Amino acid sequence: MTYKQISSTQNQLIKQIVLLKEKSRERRKSGLFVVEGLREIQLTLQGDYDIETLLFFPEICPEDSLPKLNDSTQIIEISKDVYQKIAHRDTTEGIIAIAKSKLHQLENLKLNSENPLILIAEAPEKPGNIGALLRTADAANVDAFILANPKTDLYNPNIIRSSVGCVFTNTIATGSTEDIIAFLKSNNINIYSAILQDAEYYHQQDFTKASAIVVGTEADGLSQAWRDASTQNIIIPMSGKIDSMNVSVAAGILVFEAKRQRDFI
Amino acid sequence: MTYKQISSTQNQLIKQIVLLKEKSRERRKSGLFVVEGLREIQLTLQGDYDIETLLFFPEICPEDSLPKLNDSTQIIEISKDVYQKIAHRDTTEGIIAIAKSKLHQLENLKLNSENPLILIAEAPEKPGNIGALLRTADAANVDAFILANPKTDLYNPNIIRSSVGCVFTNTIATGSTEDIIAFLKSNNINIYSAILQDAEYYHQQDFTKASAIVVGTEADGLSQAWRDASTQNIIIPMSGKIDSMNVSVAAGILVFEAKRQRDFI
Repeated sequence: MTYKQISSTQNQLIKQIVLLKEKSRERRKSGLFVVEGLREIQLTLQGDYDIETLLFFPEICPEDSLPKLNDSTQIIEISKDVYQKIAHRDTTEGIIAIAKSKLHQLENLKLNSENPLILIAEAPEKPGNIGALLRTADAANVDAFILANPKTDLYNPNIIRSSVGCVFTNTIATGSTEDIIAFLKSNNINIYSAILQDAEYYHQQDFTKASAIVVGTEADGLSQAWRDASTQNIIIPMSGKIDSMNVSVAAGILVFEAKRQRDFI
Repeated sequence: MTYKQISSTQNQLIKQIVLLKEKSRERRKSGLFVVEGLREIQLTLQGDYDIETLLFFPEICPEDSLPKLNDSTQIIEISKDVYQKIAHRDTTEGIIAIAKSKLHQLENLKLNSENPLILIAEAPEKPGNIGALLRTADAANVDAFILANPKTDLYNPNIIRSSVGCVFTNTIATGSTEDIIAFLKSNNINIYSAILQDAEYYHQQDFTKASAIVVGTEADGLSQAWRDASTQNIIIPMSGKIDSMNVSVAAGILVFEAKRQRDFI
């Protein structure tokens, strides 16, 4: 089979891919994002993402190793120059795709459990932390991962990479803190906020009921709205000299204590 | 008081600082490292590090806000050009020091508890992960953090930064996996290795006795020696689609389950 070929780094589509990788604004405007690597692309397919365009560099990724795609996907063969222009420096799989973003609207979030366990992060800033939170959410098979007041879109290449593709497999919603609290209240979900003030120890709580575990930023913690809405503020007892924990580590400890109490079911 | 002044970016000491920041080899050869920021410098003093040289840029860090130092510390006033050359781009505290490294020799490690809890990481690669592990070790107040077969020295600026100074406050040892296993055996410390094969669930173990929790790299896990030496291999039950967890998150979950069983004492 012969495919459309692009060998010029000045091609409009190639320029768009560079923009999509670099600019959150471009991703939002177009509703598209870039995903690199065979495994990650397969995870987008598993996660019911639409792939608009697939580009492959045949020297590294021969045609017969392309994933099975919808007929609507445009497949393009690219030259070495073009591949080097659009590939992340550590990527050597020879395959890159443009996919359609999901909106992750809170109103479309469906919980399939009567006692859901939800992980919520408010305004996390570092892509690496968001990636680690998404990996924890996947490993714990939480019913939903919710991003409150997001500071970045989820399709930042560094989030995709550091989540090792968990951004495509988790049930995710985003929304304002206000809307998320309303959602939790209307679904009778207990809110356990990681807040120092008036806190009880996390391991003395009962997480077997419908529970949302909420973490804020390392710099500023959670906003006032969570303090007002909290069923119970919780804290991890620390006894060091500095007592500062990475936000994704703290979230992992809290979520897996809930899993332990639930016998990992 | 008047201090020695340096205003040339070509000064030998300034060149050495740049090298110490960039090159592990230079740090090893000289036994020195660079630490930036007032808080971090105060933590090195708390941690009994010797500061050889302190450099300050008076427009940002006036003389009267310098920390109290030994008489043997050389204090140098630097110009804006020099400060910008040696400061990390996010650092705006106007103060930088050259300190003497510790050797962290295993044979000098003293455990002050009869039932110590030790966190061991074998050959972790990413400075950010090592920093997060060090923060967890501090927050849990483990008796020691041990780095097996280290791939980097602990005084990499990215480790110092991502550990938020916990690299200076923890009890740390480094050594070969072989020597560490011998140390644990001779001290009758149970070895719980995060290894998939022949593993039991982590939350079903008794961590109230003398325990070492050992984690490997995300890519390769732990080396064969740990499999042979393990009292019990342990695993965190996962039920997601990808089931991959950040190494520092996994270590946090394991260490804090041990802390929970020990009533956080």
